[in-house]
Amino acid sequence: MKRSMLASTIALLSGALISQAAVAANQEPIQPITPAKVTNPALVELGKKLYFDPRLSKSGFISCNSCHNLSMGGTDNIKTSIGHNWQEGPINAPTVLNSSLNLAQFWDGRAADLKAQAGGPIANPGEMAFTHTLAINVLQSIPAYVGEFKKAFGSETVDIEKVTKAIAAFEETLVTPNSRFDKWLKGDKKALSKNELAGYQLFKDSGCVACHNGPAVGGNSFQKMGVVEAYKASSPAEGRSAVTGKDADRFNFKVPTLRNVEMTYPYFHDGAANTLKEAVDTMGRLQLGKKFSDDENAKIVAFLKTLTGDQPNFKMPILPPSADATPRPTPFEKK
Amino acid sequence: MKRSMLASTIALLSGALISQAAVAANQEPIQPITPAKVTNPALVELGKKLYFDPRLSKSGFISCNSCHNLSMGGTDNIKTSIGHNWQEGPINAPTVLNSSLNLAQFWDGRAADLKAQAGGPIANPGEMAFTHTLAINVLQSIPAYVGEFKKAFGSETVDIEKVTKAIAAFEETLVTPNSRFDKWLKGDKKALSKNELAGYQLFKDSGCVACHNGPAVGGNSFQKMGVVEAYKASSPAEGRSAVTGKDADRFNFKVPTLRNVEMTYPYFHDGAANTLKEAVDTMGRLQLGKKFSDDENAKIVAFLKTLTGDQPNFKMPILPPSADATPRPTPFEKK
Repeated sequence: MKRSMLASTIALLSGALISQAAVAANQEPIQPITPAKVTNPALVELGKKLYFDPRLSKSGFISCNSCHNLSMGGTDNIKTSIGHNWQEGPINAPTVLNSSLNLAQFWDGRAADLKAQAGGPIANPGEMAFTHTLAINVLQSIPAYVGEFKKAFGSETVDIEKVTKAIAAFEETLVTPNSRFDKWLKGDKKALSKNELAGYQLFKDSGCVACHNGPAVGGNSFQKMGVVEAYKASSPAEGRSAVTGKDADRFNFKVPTLRNVEMTYPYFHDGAANTLKEAVDTMGRLQLGKKFSDDENAKIVAFLKTLTGDQPNFKMPILPPSADATPRPTPFEKK
Repeated sequence: MKRSMLASTIALLSGALISQAAVAANQEPIQPITPAKVTNPALVELGKKLYFDPRLSKSGFISCNSCHNLSMGGTDNIKTSIGHNWQEGPINAPTVLNSSLNLAQFWDGRAADLKAQAGGPIANPGEMAFTHTLAINVLQSIPAYVGEFKKAFGSETVDIEKVTKAIAAFEETLVTPNSRFDKWLKGDKKALSKNELAGYQLFKDSGCVACHNGPAVGGNSFQKMGVVEAYKASSPAEGRSAVTGKDADRFNFKVPTLRNVEMTYPYFHDGAANTLKEAVDTMGRLQLGKKFSDDENAKIVAFLKTLTGDQPNFKMPILPPSADATPRPTPFEKK
């Protein structure tokens, strides 16, 4: 009897502790990242292969992973990306990590979701420079791929709908739970140092959190770049107005996620800020009218570095080889 | 007693079977691939990261894995590779798989070993277009890399000797044992079909095996491309003579390995043959003065496809992020 009473008391106490932690977490403007649940493993496996397959590009050289490199925070870590024939991209490649949490895809939100996004670069003449038809011709000619489509979708038909659905399903697994900050949110008060906590406090008190909130610490709204002071961009991109046609949306961009931000440099839609120090300074001045001291800046940066979570953790995929009938890439074709 | 006698008899019989199989394997001109033995795991792990790190290139976009893609048979599956600024490479990228078995590296054998090879593309203006000094500056600035050099070498100094040594150590693990053909060699007579065996017999009887032999089924000699009939190459490369300066070595190239040849298309130093059928036909005519019938060709191709072994099997590496002081890539710099 005594034992069972003790057990009940412990259960009650733990329950109390858990709900206290839950309340604390609920009060924070940032929520932990939830691990991905895979419902169709064959679909995710197919999507992973497609994500890594450069045969979805005209050159046979550029895959999704070229610019959203999963070894490097889901981005290419260069100011603007390199497209077909070494064309300079118009904008910084956003990270694919946690992108399923975005309210829309691309900096200007022109794609509603990951599936809608995935078809874009394949057919963009400045990126993979292919066409959906040609990409499908390639995949259809490869028996092992056809088998995987059958396994994932129950039918051997290969079309762009299925290709983008599979890529999106894989991308949905690319969330990064278990950052030190999330551990702190969940009640492990030793997960953050005093300095990092002070940075988080500054991040909240200064107003950064007005836009960078939610599980992705961003990604859930469009905001004007340059609120207090105009931003002198090195890119001609005008953001959301290109989608809505509204002048009021000029220089409105999707607020980027700050998850894994230590790995996703350079920063801003034009990739102009090389370091977190620089990005925090610019954001403070332009968005909040605040000049952070070196000490404040360092504290915020220390906090931001606690947002790095579990990075993609899977075996490098082996791609099925082309068949004799598979159309070959034409990287140097002039047209 | 009966039992132990039976056991002894079985042991004797199995011994006899094993040595018979060993004799049979010894009589074959091709030997099985031996799995890699890792003696310094920290060195291999560092080498893997460096192999995947595009920061060893001027653009920050091209890594060893770009042209020797481990998802695609250790090659890029394009005729000639794409280098910095989309330059067209002069020659087909040879596979990195089993390259530790080569008598020398590059098609013309100008590098004695993998370590000597690894430094080449980094500093080649047509490939990664960087310099060894700049690559070292990048690595030295990244604390996590410095830590890995310390772990692998016992000292924090980063130099090109160590970089190439680490990449070579990783590449030495990229052997592909357990192909169906190796299983057959080791005594599993059901591992090959009648058709595939007939192909192997043709491969031996026709003389292919004169150059394509040993564990790598090639890679162990330089031979003239175009013995019976001249080869009309689409590449100006003259092979071994560029290294020896001897006219007699013109159009002598390292015999490529046929391991995983199903995955390493297109074929020949100029990548002119898209399919195995075409490659077998050309080789027969030019090297052996033989016109294989469609049936013979198909049998040899069936045999060649049994040479695909275990592909690289590891988790995609996560690269340590650049620090504030890390020099940034300059992909679009005109110089």
